[in-house]
Amino acid sequence: MNDIIMLATRLPAGQEAEYRAALAAAMPDETIVPLREADADARAGARIAIVARPDPAELAALPRLAWIQSLWAGVEQLLESLPATAQPVVRLVDPEMSRTMAEAVLAWTYYLQREMPAYRGQQQAREWRQRPYRKPQDIQVGIVGLGTLGAAAAARLLEAGFRVAGWSRSPKRMAGVDTHHGAEGLTRLLGASEIVVCLVPLTDGTRGLFDRQTLAAMRPGAALINFSRGPVVVTRDLLQALDAGRLSHAVLDVFEVEPLPQASPLWAHPAVTVLPHISAPTDLHTAAAVVAANVAAYRASGRIPAGVDLSRGY
Amino acid sequence: MNDIIMLATRLPAGQEAEYRAALAAAMPDETIVPLREADADARAGARIAIVARPDPAELAALPRLAWIQSLWAGVEQLLESLPATAQPVVRLVDPEMSRTMAEAVLAWTYYLQREMPAYRGQQQAREWRQRPYRKPQDIQVGIVGLGTLGAAAAARLLEAGFRVAGWSRSPKRMAGVDTHHGAEGLTRLLGASEIVVCLVPLTDGTRGLFDRQTLAAMRPGAALINFSRGPVVVTRDLLQALDAGRLSHAVLDVFEVEPLPQASPLWAHPAVTVLPHISAPTDLHTAAAVVAANVAAYRASGRIPAGVDLSRGY
Repeated sequence: MNDIIMLATRLPAGQEAEYRAALAAAMPDETIVPLREADADARAGARIAIVARPDPAELAALPRLAWIQSLWAGVEQLLESLPATAQPVVRLVDPEMSRTMAEAVLAWTYYLQREMPAYRGQQQAREWRQRPYRKPQDIQVGIVGLGTLGAAAAARLLEAGFRVAGWSRSPKRMAGVDTHHGAEGLTRLLGASEIVVCLVPLTDGTRGLFDRQTLAAMRPGAALINFSRGPVVVTRDLLQALDAGRLSHAVLDVFEVEPLPQASPLWAHPAVTVLPHISAPTDLHTAAAVVAANVAAYRASGRIPAGVDLSRGY
Repeated sequence: MNDIIMLATRLPAGQEAEYRAALAAAMPDETIVPLREADADARAGARIAIVARPDPAELAALPRLAWIQSLWAGVEQLLESLPATAQPVVRLVDPEMSRTMAEAVLAWTYYLQREMPAYRGQQQAREWRQRPYRKPQDIQVGIVGLGTLGAAAAARLLEAGFRVAGWSRSPKRMAGVDTHHGAEGLTRLLGASEIVVCLVPLTDGTRGLFDRQTLAAMRPGAALINFSRGPVVVTRDLLQALDAGRLSHAVLDVFEVEPLPQASPLWAHPAVTVLPHISAPTDLHTAAAVVAANVAAYRASGRIPAGVDLSRGY
C-alpha cells in the first residue's frame, strides 16, 4: 500500500476542500490527507506533499518527504520560504493553463489593437470618431519570456495574424517568431514592438526587469501587458512613462502587493487597466489530472518528476 | 478602347479622391472619372458606375449604364434610393472584410467572455474580486445571419473553441455549427446562446427583427453584439431589456441614426458599449482589387457580375 499524500496549504478551508476533492477524484487509489488533520504516523510516512502556500515549518517536519508538488505554476514564493536543503519542487505545468493564458494574451492584445480603452473614453465624452484600423499583420507583439506560457501565447498570436517577436534569457527558436535573447536582444525587441507582453517567471534575474531603463527602450506609444508577476515591473517607473505619454497603456493583472492596495494610483490612472490576477486561473480538474500523472509516474518508477532548477529559480 | 468608368459618390472630396486613386492603381488600363467632373460624351458612353452614396438622379441620367458596383457590402440605402427599373447592383464582397469582421466578432466576444466591462466597473470602484472564469467550450455564441460575414465569424469562433450556433432565413449547413432557420429556429437559437451576434443584412424582413418579443426569447443574462445595421434592433426595446436586467450587456457598432445623436440614452448606459461603426472598415486597397476583378471579368465576357437579388434585398 502506498504511503499517504500530504496536502499542505494555508488556503481558506473551502478552497482547500475543493482542491482535495478534485485531487481525490483524479487519484482514487491514493489517500490524500490535509496536513493539518494528519496524525503522527501519517506525517512519519508521507513521501509526497502537494502544496499551495504551505507552512514551511510543517513541511520541514515531515521526515521522509521525497518531493513537493506545487499546485501553481509560479513557485517563487514557495522557493523563497523553503531552506536550500529542501526536497525538489515540481511546478504545475498544465496544458490547460497554457491555453487559458494564450487566450488571455490574445484577448487583451485585441483590446489594445481594437483600441477598446480609447473607444471607451470616446463613449464617455459622447464622441463619434472612427480611429484608423490597424491590421494584425502591421502590428508587432513582443513576448518577453518564451517558456511554456510564452510559447503558447506566441503561437496563438501568430494564428491571429500578428507579427510576433519573442525574448528569452538563453537562445530559443520558434517557427514564425523573431526570437531574441540576452540584454541586447531585449533592447532590440522592445524597440520594435507596439505591444509588449511580459510572461517571465519571477526570479532574482527578472525582479525589476521593467525599470526606467527598460521602459525607455520601448517604442514611443507602445503598450505593456503584464501577466507574469508584479515585481517584474517597477510601478513607479511605469507610472512615469505613462504620465509622460511615452507609453500609451498598461494592462496589469499582477502587482507588487496583491490585492492591489486601495491607495494605489494605478486604480484611477486613465492609461491603466487593472485586473485582479485573472488572466489564467488554475483549473482544479485539469491541475488535479496533471498532478495525478506526476504521482502515478513516481509510483511506477520511483523517480521524482523533473523539478525546478534552483539555480535559475524556475 | 473601353468606355470610361463613372465614380459616383457624395463622399467628402478627400475621401472620394482616395477611392479614385486606389481604383486607378488596381485598374491601370481603365479610365475612372468622378461623375461630377464628367462631360456629356463621357456620360453618354459609360456602362459601369462605381458608387458610394451616389445621387440617384445622376445615375438615372446615364443612358448606356449596364451595371452598378457598390463600394460597400451593405446596399440597403442604395437600393432604396434607386427606381425598381435601375440597373443591376453588385455588392462589395471582399474577403479582407470578412477577415476583419470575423476578427471583430472574436475580439468583442472575448470582451464579454473575459468580462472586461465588469472588471472595468470593479476598477472604478477599486474592487479586487476574481469573477469565475468560463471556458469558450462552455459558452454558446449564436450568429444571427450566416451570410459571407456570419460564416467567417462562425469559423473564427469555432477555431477559438466556442460553441457556435447559426441562424439563417433559409436552411444552411456548416461543419461544427448548430444551424437553425425560420422563426422557430431563431427562438431556439436565442434561448440557447449566451452571446448573440447580429450579422443579418438590413432588409424589409430584418428591420426591427430584435424587438421586444425577440429580445424576450434570449437567455436571461445573455449579451447582444450588433455589427450589422442599426434598424435591425429596436433601441427602445433593447433598453427596456437591459434596464430590467434580462440582458447583461449590448455591444453596438451601428445605430438607427449615425452618428449616434448626442441625446441618445445609449451613450451613458452602464450596460452598453457604443462603437462608432468601426467593426469592419473598408480596406481601400483590397476593395479596389475586388472591384477591378469584377470589371475585368465583365470586360472579358460581357457578362454582368452576380448582383443583388432585389426580391431579397441582398
